[in-house]
Amino acid sequence: MTDYRTLRVALLGAGAVGSQVADLLLKHRAELADRAGANLELAGIAVRNVDGKRDADLPRELFTTDAETLIVGSDIVIELMGGIEPARTQVLQAINSGADVVTANKALLATHGSEIFEAADQVGAEVYYEAAAAGAIPIIRPLRDSLAGDRVVRIMGIVNGTTNYILDRMDTEGADFADVLAQAQALGYAEADPTADVEGYDAAQKAAILASLAFHTAVPLDAVHREGITQIDAAMIESARHAGYVIKLLAVCERLAAAEGEASESISVRVYPALVERSHPLASVHGANNAVFVQAEAAGDLMFYGAGAGGVQTASAVLGDVVSAARRHIAGGVGVGESTRANLPTVPIGRVITRYQITLEVDDQPGVLATVAGILSEGRVSIATVEQTVIEPDADSAAGGSARLVIGTHQAREQDLSETVQRLAASGVVERVVSVLRVEGN
Amino acid sequence: MTDYRTLRVALLGAGAVGSQVADLLLKHRAELADRAGANLELAGIAVRNVDGKRDADLPRELFTTDAETLIVGSDIVIELMGGIEPARTQVLQAINSGADVVTANKALLATHGSEIFEAADQVGAEVYYEAAAAGAIPIIRPLRDSLAGDRVVRIMGIVNGTTNYILDRMDTEGADFADVLAQAQALGYAEADPTADVEGYDAAQKAAILASLAFHTAVPLDAVHREGITQIDAAMIESARHAGYVIKLLAVCERLAAAEGEASESISVRVYPALVERSHPLASVHGANNAVFVQAEAAGDLMFYGAGAGGVQTASAVLGDVVSAARRHIAGGVGVGESTRANLPTVPIGRVITRYQITLEVDDQPGVLATVAGILSEGRVSIATVEQTVIEPDADSAAGGSARLVIGTHQAREQDLSETVQRLAASGVVERVVSVLRVEGN
Repeated sequence: MTDYRTLRVALLGAGAVGSQVADLLLKHRAELADRAGANLELAGIAVRNVDGKRDADLPRELFTTDAETLIVGSDIVIELMGGIEPARTQVLQAINSGADVVTANKALLATHGSEIFEAADQVGAEVYYEAAAAGAIPIIRPLRDSLAGDRVVRIMGIVNGTTNYILDRMDTEGADFADVLAQAQALGYAEADPTADVEGYDAAQKAAILASLAFHTAVPLDAVHREGITQIDAAMIESARHAGYVIKLLAVCERLAAAEGEASESISVRVYPALVERSHPLASVHGANNAVFVQAEAAGDLMFYGAGAGGVQTASAVLGDVVSAARRHIAGGVGVGESTRANLPTVPIGRVITRYQITLEVDDQPGVLATVAGILSEGRVSIATVEQTVIEPDADSAAGGSARLVIGTHQAREQDLSETVQRLAASGVVERVVSVLRVEGN
Repeated sequence: MTDYRTLRVALLGAGAVGSQVADLLLKHRAELADRAGANLELAGIAVRNVDGKRDADLPRELFTTDAETLIVGSDIVIELMGGIEPARTQVLQAINSGADVVTANKALLATHGSEIFEAADQVGAEVYYEAAAAGAIPIIRPLRDSLAGDRVVRIMGIVNGTTNYILDRMDTEGADFADVLAQAQALGYAEADPTADVEGYDAAQKAAILASLAFHTAVPLDAVHREGITQIDAAMIESARHAGYVIKLLAVCERLAAAEGEASESISVRVYPALVERSHPLASVHGANNAVFVQAEAAGDLMFYGAGAGGVQTASAVLGDVVSAARRHIAGGVGVGESTRANLPTVPIGRVITRYQITLEVDDQPGVLATVAGILSEGRVSIATVEQTVIEPDADSAAGGSARLVIGTHQAREQDLSETVQRLAASGVVERVVSVLRVEGN
């Protein structure tokens, strides 16, 4: 090891991922030096409380509460605090002091990515963030580098482990959302406040990061359409299964052809629970695993699969970035920066075109199907499949019986579809719109 | 485009991949310039015959037979000729003239990789080869960079599309090897001389490349144990299915713990048809697709899936490398070189430990199972499962009937296993050793 140059590494944060990163940096010191071509000296770990409980047994003298001083003179700064501040300020300090930055902070990149990448560009520093989307799965380098000569058409990602765990258990056990969520919380798969996961905020941050890379365009978080899974119930899962689908929370990033009168292509970035055919590779992603399905013009279909979260799994991605940063320090040269020159506009959800499954409760009377079909047709929504089943009539009720109508549509424009559903709801024959779900993945 | 620096790109070879690369370089000129931060000027295409038929419509004036002159002054040289010579000489010429090299030539890298990487190291050039293993699937960067901070334990890859196509059709149709091979040849999935594919030579080259990267060790091609699929017949596929398996040609790259008295870990690199459980992600890789399943200490299980071959698919990987090379030219600095400092020894196949399925035809007489079990036990091969079925006795034969014995073993050493199988074959009770297959996965 003695003939290698030594690089000073500062670690900010010692939570589940941070403590594993520190542990592996110390444990695999010699091996990492051989791979990086440099000794990676862990100079210190900045935390709020130096006596806090850690997931790994780490030398107490490494801990400090003074991040600012630790950053000074570091070659590589690893930011694993999470949240926006003080992460943003300290990442910018690191960049401006000449360090390369490795971060797993998806919230920071999704909200302040442009500011951070521009700051890095100014000084020729590099920002690595393989761990910020889909945990241990190498997806950033494939999108940023391997597919840089291709044109990504579409990404469909299962990028949130908690919601995939919940939906998978609802699917296999027929259980309801609230019950599985409670179990997931007890097992540590979901947090006490599950909002970020179940409402799709976490997936939306990752979608913004993936879309930015895939389409060479800075995609702000507020351009991502977001819906969560809290409204998914056992009946919807069962109905999906009956039709040959499984429900997954998908992050969909799509390139759209230029519409008439438009100068450029545009993109759509959206997160919502969608129906996926059971034969699709994404349908067999079980438990808390993640997978990113990528369709590119030349490469065709690709899929990347693995653990989406977990301290030690995510630490693997962080350390890969640390080795890359070290190799770059040894090799010299400036950072290559982010490629955002395509600068494609993001369309609102109303312009998205996809297929739908509409489930309605209707009066079980002659002519109802004709009325429903007429409203759909007027709304430019074309029916692909329809299945009507009689709901057990209420013996006490004087009214006639009800029927359930499950309609699969051909591709339709979201705005046409939602206006049509409103018209259906207001029509005399529809008692209740049970659910409207998008169908993704041909 | 005018404010970008122009980089001179030379293309060697205009076959299925080369002509697609040239076509995409010309067609996506502006977009690639934005991504690379440099104009990529295709200076020329070196071929044997300038009037040869091409898969894409390319300007005739780009073609030349004089590769040496074309290479001079180029910033990036793309080698897509295949074969060892003149590819080796021209790649070395390119490196020594200061160019970065992009190649999809697995045969060249598997046999002369060390020479080429050392030459690049000497001058600070970089060699990119994402397309050399598993076609369009980004696997090189994940192994080289994303997992550089982790320890790869094992790779199991379906890295040859032709053999996967053949085995998949044998599995779905119950057809025999020769019939499916003939169909595959007619459809263009297999070459007129299928030896490189069906005997595992192609997969062995890719295994050497993947193992070198994964274990930071220069793995020569002759260290790869290789067996092909020509002996696989419909009965073996059916028997595998009956036991819950599918037969896949696997490239297995494995890290082995240091044995007693050994200073370091070692590795095993091997290509053979193996039984894979139908629930394993690799079992659902159909047709000519490829997939690489990676197990790493920290990251856990990862899988990379996509098209393993095809002109335009492979061109995607080549162009990703071209953009990377261009970015590096703009950024400055020297190439980071290959990480081969771990230098782990490769063990011979006899020391490999895996599970086996042994199929025997035996005399259908009392005591036979006891004899077979005794021979296995003496040979240190432990039985996990056994299934005996009576084979329809030959009515004309005076001899007693036969039985088929399918034995699943626990983990055993390959050398113990093969010696034991020899002893079984020589024993009086075994009429025929029908097949011996390894079981991989877990």
